[in-house]
Amino acid sequence: MAGNTFGTLYRITTFGESHGKGIGVVIDGCPSGLELDESHIFAELQRRKPGQSKIVTQRHENEEFEVLSGVFEGKTTGTPLAIFIRNQDQRSKDYSHIMDKYRPSHADYTYSKKYGIRDYRGGGRSSARETAARVIAGAIAMQILTKMGIEINAYVNQVGDIKLASTIKVDYNKIDDNIIRCPHDETATKMIDLITDIKKKGDTIGGAIHCNISGMPVGVGAPVFDKLHAELGKAMLSINAVKGFELGSGFGAITMKGSEHNDAFENIDGKVTTKTNYSGGIQGGISNGMDITFNVAFKPVATIIQSQESVDKEGNATTVTGKGRHDPCVVPRAVPIVESMAAMVILDHILIDRSTRLDDLIGS
Amino acid sequence: MAGNTFGTLYRITTFGESHGKGIGVVIDGCPSGLELDESHIFAELQRRKPGQSKIVTQRHENEEFEVLSGVFEGKTTGTPLAIFIRNQDQRSKDYSHIMDKYRPSHADYTYSKKYGIRDYRGGGRSSARETAARVIAGAIAMQILTKMGIEINAYVNQVGDIKLASTIKVDYNKIDDNIIRCPHDETATKMIDLITDIKKKGDTIGGAIHCNISGMPVGVGAPVFDKLHAELGKAMLSINAVKGFELGSGFGAITMKGSEHNDAFENIDGKVTTKTNYSGGIQGGISNGMDITFNVAFKPVATIIQSQESVDKEGNATTVTGKGRHDPCVVPRAVPIVESMAAMVILDHILIDRSTRLDDLIGS
Amino acid sequence: MAGNTFGTLYRITTFGESHGKGIGVVIDGCPSGLELDESHIFAELQRRKPGQSKIVTQRHENEEFEVLSGVFEGKTTGTPLAIFIRNQDQRSKDYSHIMDKYRPSHADYTYSKKYGIRDYRGGGRSSARETAARVIAGAIAMQILTKMGIEINAYVNQVGDIKLASTIKVDYNKIDDNIIRCPHDETATKMIDLITDIKKKGDTIGGAIHCNISGMPVGVGAPVFDKLHAELGKAMLSINAVKGFELGSGFGAITMKGSEHNDAFENIDGKVTTKTNYSGGIQGGISNGMDITFNVAFKPVATIIQSQESVDKEGNATTVTGKGRHDPCVVPRAVPIVESMAAMVILDHILIDRSTRLDDLIGS
Amino acid sequence: MAGNTFGTLYRITTFGESHGKGIGVVIDGCPSGLELDESHIFAELQRRKPGQSKIVTQRHENEEFEVLSGVFEGKTTGTPLAIFIRNQDQRSKDYSHIMDKYRPSHADYTYSKKYGIRDYRGGGRSSARETAARVIAGAIAMQILTKMGIEINAYVNQVGDIKLASTIKVDYNKIDDNIIRCPHDETATKMIDLITDIKKKGDTIGGAIHCNISGMPVGVGAPVFDKLHAELGKAMLSINAVKGFELGSGFGAITMKGSEHNDAFENIDGKVTTKTNYSGGIQGGISNGMDITFNVAFKPVATIIQSQESVDKEGNATTVTGKGRHDPCVVPRAVPIVESMAAMVILDHILIDRSTRLDDLIGS
Repeated sequence: MAGNTFGTLYRITTFGESHGKGIGVVIDGCPSGLELDESHIFAELQRRKPGQSKIVTQRHENEEFEVLSGVFEGKTTGTPLAIFIRNQDQRSKDYSHIMDKYRPSHADYTYSKKYGIRDYRGGGRSSARETAARVIAGAIAMQILTKMGIEINAYVNQVGDIKLASTIKVDYNKIDDNIIRCPHDETATKMIDLITDIKKKGDTIGGAIHCNISGMPVGVGAPVFDKLHAELGKAMLSINAVKGFELGSGFGAITMKGSEHNDAFENIDGKVTTKTNYSGGIQGGISNGMDITFNVAFKPVATIIQSQESVDKEGNATTVTGKGRHDPCVVPRAVPIVESMAAMVILDHILIDRSTRLDDLIGS
Repeated sequence: MAGNTFGTLYRITTFGESHGKGIGVVIDGCPSGLELDESHIFAELQRRKPGQSKIVTQRHENEEFEVLSGVFEGKTTGTPLAIFIRNQDQRSKDYSHIMDKYRPSHADYTYSKKYGIRDYRGGGRSSARETAARVIAGAIAMQILTKMGIEINAYVNQVGDIKLASTIKVDYNKIDDNIIRCPHDETATKMIDLITDIKKKGDTIGGAIHCNISGMPVGVGAPVFDKLHAELGKAMLSINAVKGFELGSGFGAITMKGSEHNDAFENIDGKVTTKTNYSGGIQGGISNGMDITFNVAFKPVATIIQSQESVDKEGNATTVTGKGRHDPCVVPRAVPIVESMAAMVILDHILIDRSTRLDDLIGS
Repeated sequence: MAGNTFGTLYRITTFGESHGKGIGVVIDGCPSGLELDESHIFAELQRRKPGQSKIVTQRHENEEFEVLSGVFEGKTTGTPLAIFIRNQDQRSKDYSHIMDKYRPSHADYTYSKKYGIRDYRGGGRSSARETAARVIAGAIAMQILTKMGIEINAYVNQVGDIKLASTIKVDYNKIDDNIIRCPHDETATKMIDLITDIKKKGDTIGGAIHCNISGMPVGVGAPVFDKLHAELGKAMLSINAVKGFELGSGFGAITMKGSEHNDAFENIDGKVTTKTNYSGGIQGGISNGMDITFNVAFKPVATIIQSQESVDKEGNATTVTGKGRHDPCVVPRAVPIVESMAAMVILDHILIDRSTRLDDLIGS
Repeated sequence: MAGNTFGTLYRITTFGESHGKGIGVVIDGCPSGLELDESHIFAELQRRKPGQSKIVTQRHENEEFEVLSGVFEGKTTGTPLAIFIRNQDQRSKDYSHIMDKYRPSHADYTYSKKYGIRDYRGGGRSSARETAARVIAGAIAMQILTKMGIEINAYVNQVGDIKLASTIKVDYNKIDDNIIRCPHDETATKMIDLITDIKKKGDTIGGAIHCNISGMPVGVGAPVFDKLHAELGKAMLSINAVKGFELGSGFGAITMKGSEHNDAFENIDGKVTTKTNYSGGIQGGISNGMDITFNVAFKPVATIIQSQESVDKEGNATTVTGKGRHDPCVVPRAVPIVESMAAMVILDHILIDRSTRLDDLIGS
């Protein structure tokens, strides 16, 4: 239970460090018979990749992965899928200057204290490099969900104080049309300008991502502790730099009245639906067939090109000065990570749900 | 994995329905040798209890619990603690009017579709009555944490648009001084007035709770998927009516710059601490010794005394009219639930952490 | 993970002590829509019950159970089933003589050392009284398996050196025809005579149970660590007094040659079957559709009416003299326990198996 | 829960196929600060290796492993250890003759039916090649146990009807002195002769392994379902070709009386010990400080050089003729696998045990 495993029936374990041999994932419980689309996995990794545009880190990372097991003649066999990306651009020397220092708001201090040892090269295991493994496993989950008619779309809806107006109708086909992944050109341009400016100052800025899941069957999720949105929340909060999660109305619900917030049921052409969707597609922890919608808040990246006060291993006051290449804002690259984590939660609960009802089991 | 179990080493499973025989919890993994303080458990249940004040539901519920197992001569034995509260005020007849209808924004529709059967009496398993079991298990976790010097304090910091000003220094000793559990009299009075007004209109209102955990050792939590705040987030999002969770700076981090948001380390009298605490006491998923701080957003209660449009079991349009006794605002009673869930997450991770380092294991 | 939970999707947690308030079980993951047959559960409990015949302990135990949750209008709702049996015949005073002593080959010493505290009344949590909870949960699993055409039959095939000849064709309908539960009258009589004799001497004797599972679908189980027979083995070895488990040929396989042991496949009327069944119905950890067959070895009960050397809490030499009522041989009462544990393993793996293949998921 | 994960706090997931890219393991929960002894891991792999002597398969397998993650400057960091062995001697063409046929007593049929697809090359995932991954993870567990003074020794005690006499006092230092791993030269010679003879006939033979664990602390294990011997039993039964497991007296207990079988406690120089050890070192599922002793039964290898009747994919009668290189008897190579699985069970339970008692937690 050391924290590197996620999911119950579609269960992944990731491993690897930023500047070690590489990053990998083992997926246990992937249904058999899936024709694995490696080009789709690769395409998703490209969306997460450093160096993809001028507003992300210019670090070079290898994204070529090797499928080590679990596929035979192009199809998944139902046995563990292990996939590995070998690191190339390690440059360990870049990190000697922080070997004995704790960078503010990184995991340096906490890892050192918990484990008594720390791979200080690029954050080691705490680096967001680990999320490449999540994108691989999420892409595979997505390939299965697609066959079920489920679609997951995430996009950037805020950077600093530049916010996509809630009145704007979003076209998911436009998400990847710009480098910030905000499907509204005018807002996207403002966001890009803001990030460009922040980057020049050697600083970083926070942001937010909205996610929408459509095509959901009714009845997916669980009561009490494993509510579908609790699982989604945990999934999102486990992503590096995430500080908040809200479902449907979210924090906006605080100021609402029940008479406004309640989603009236109606029957549209034989399908039960709700007039509004403040519930965010989940009621009592279980999907109601409406789109699942949630927001994820990201803090500004901790690595900045400015001198900061800190302490060293002995607790003495010292100064940390950012070097190297880092992201001025994490959200454009985090979009596929949010989608990946969402895909795994949804697929896992669909698999679990198959054993819920006796009449499904005995075929009557 | 049907969703009624929480935790790894301190692991609880709850059972029971709103209008069935009662509500219970089994705690597996409670350390042995704890002198169980039943009066403390009872006191915590009183804080969650219906009918405790004029601004909560006037329903009567039994809070007398029976310890069914796991205690011998007043001490926990290390075997499962089972604790049961027998229901008294069942009034099943109150619910016949919603037997075949789906109340908007309740779990009626989703439970019916998932399970093919629904205990419609008072929400059955989806009722917040289940949280009494959590408060019992949380109180016991708290008794252990207290011996370790860890203190958890939650309070109401917003009801509708009445918000406790962030400039106000909170005195945790005053949390229970008023019926809304906001430790600032002036703000509390406004909140109570708002709820009283909302109640008169047969409506409900949302709210928010802030939680603070002090005395944390450094190094509690896990990397990657089981980050301490991801676990806390899941715990909170699993509470009925919760729509959002944020750690430390939370959604506020979106508009912040890294140079503002980073928490500079400093050495105060030999203790490493941070000048600010936007991290909310957790870095890289692991506690850094600062107070853990988070906010939880609650939606307005779905039961309102107003006619609402809905559909019935056959999908026909119908009207639902609220009857019975319900909470105009959930937050005053949710304070001990938030504290309980937090206590269980922290204790569980402290137990897990004991097996982290080889030198702890071999005593060198 | 304190060891009181069993199963993944059909998951039970038991609680309670021999001389505490009672014994109970929570079943999480029982499929919804099952018309619970309480009389069947009760009948199974009668087969495990003390005092049922002259060759078992004459202790009186209550077997009346109360369903605390999870059933509505006679059907399971998919939420946790909690069932409790309140103890009646506690007689705690019987046990004061062993309060400070460790009975040989009981769990007194190990529980005391592990937990630092021990409920010494009748073995507390380590008592076989706990298995009543397993029989309840197993009976419910059996009710579901029966609807799938799966039948589980266990019987006594050895007591001391009295062994049911392997040449005898067993009629499962005769298992409960005698008090030893061996479906061959002549052998049964010898076994009963042996036990009667052993009992007179204040001694106890070991025995063995054979179990046969018919109607198995092909493909149930898992590769590698969770092989179906590894799960069955763990289930059986978790029963009090069990010392060994063997599948199919079992320990007999040690002296066999591959050319003898291999089960040749054949096609009988369109059904693939094997000519022999040394595999015991499981190959590579997965059911092959043949009957699953295994043996379970039970040691002689540790409580005997003879003085035995031991030590007390301080480690001083002392003498323990058996008092009270105990079983001279555990196997007649263990038959329903073996069946119950088997039923839970099989059902759990059938539930898990439903998520294995993509074509089952997407309905093509 | 697809069956490829083992353990709770020291948790491994293995992956890979006999004739795929290779075999690997991810260990999550390995304590930090262990100076990893790679030469010890390699030495253990040599003991499992094909081609090590004339009585095992002459197949060539690569045993060179690569540590992909979790180690920094030679020490474990507490993050996942991933270790991979790349396959070299794949010879997929060898297996085309069984592509469409089900080999008797192999997993061909059950895997095909469960997954709808099967990697037929050398058994794919069902091959004992997978156990190399277990030996790696077990060797690391062993390195930790050694530091705690715990020693695990397994040896061959039976091949066919050649059995090591129980009266012979075993010297563990002699286990690896001969190619059968039976620490008694005379018996070993007979075993080797028998296997040599069996091999000439193109047949195979069963065998048994005895395992002894010394230096155990008192109090390791769990009550009820996760009894230490139930976990050991599951671990052993999960090894390819294992048909039976017995603890201490095992199946011999069936014919014993309680007065013989009970292990009298005595105090030897201030240490509580037992005069006999029929309990096999475990009472009530928890270690009592005596040596843990158990036997494991292995069936004859299913691959034989003789024509056998079978069916093909369409269910038509066919003949399977063994080709290729296989083991005439599995036990000499299984010795390190038994030790490895035992090491992981013991370490996992030692880690879990650290959170049992309140006084350990609060340091009083």
